[in-house]
Amino acid sequence: MNAWLDQVNWGSDGLAPVITQEFSTKQVLTLAWMNRESLQLTADTGHAVYWSRSRQKLWHKGEQSGHQQIIKSIRIDCDQDAILLEVEQLGGIACHTGRHHCFFLQLQNGEWQPTEPVLKNPDEIYQ
Amino acid sequence: MNAWLDQVNWGSDGLAPVITQEFSTKQVLTLAWMNRESLQLTADTGHAVYWSRSRQKLWHKGEQSGHQQIIKSIRIDCDQDAILLEVEQLGGIACHTGRHHCFFLQLQNGEWQPTEPVLKNPDEIYQ
Repeated sequence: MNAWLDQVNWGSDGLAPVITQEFSTKQVLTLAWMNRESLQLTADTGHAVYWSRSRQKLWHKGEQSGHQQIIKSIRIDCDQDAILLEVEQLGGIACHTGRHHCFFLQLQNGEWQPTEPVLKNPDEIYQ
Repeated sequence: MNAWLDQVNWGSDGLAPVITQEFSTKQVLTLAWMNRESLQLTADTGHAVYWSRSRQKLWHKGEQSGHQQIIKSIRIDCDQDAILLEVEQLGGIACHTGRHHCFFLQLQNGEWQPTEPVLKNPDEIYQ
């Protein structure tokens, strides 16, 4: 029944990198990680569920913030070792810093410069 | 001089995952890997240079196929452990299978279904 899960080439740590892209804008929001269980839960529930490497547990995106990600599509790549999600980002904020997306540091003149505004104070997001 | 390279949180294997996105269409093309040297070369040359995990060597994207990636921007994320490139994809083909991008397998009814056409026979790309 779950042959599609077996067809993912999970890493030696049981994880695969996951690119999450906003469906409406095509903005890349985050790079996160999944294990087999989190990918199954993502497909079953229609909400993004990752594996938190820092907390070593399942991470139902938006569980604290309410900023859930509604799944539009799930893809894997030619090597079947990387995952691409298209999502609707509830609340318009994917990053724990309160920004729309996580890739807000751009290399300019030999320095990483922040390029995106903070939309909401993280203290207000995580109460 | 290279403090910006030190600010990347390279993994225990010295690598970081790299999302490469087409500048004009915002299509996610590939998920690849870089080490410190490849990121430096990418910034210095203006062409994407990855680290090939399978071949354990620097991989100048397009060195065989001519399908180089011209750098438009280089970003890192909030944790500084993932990289996002915006590129111009020469030849319109990023995937070694001859497709525009690598994420051509989409989960549909419990199976990974190919969704993108092969634009050029790989035998013609890699001669």
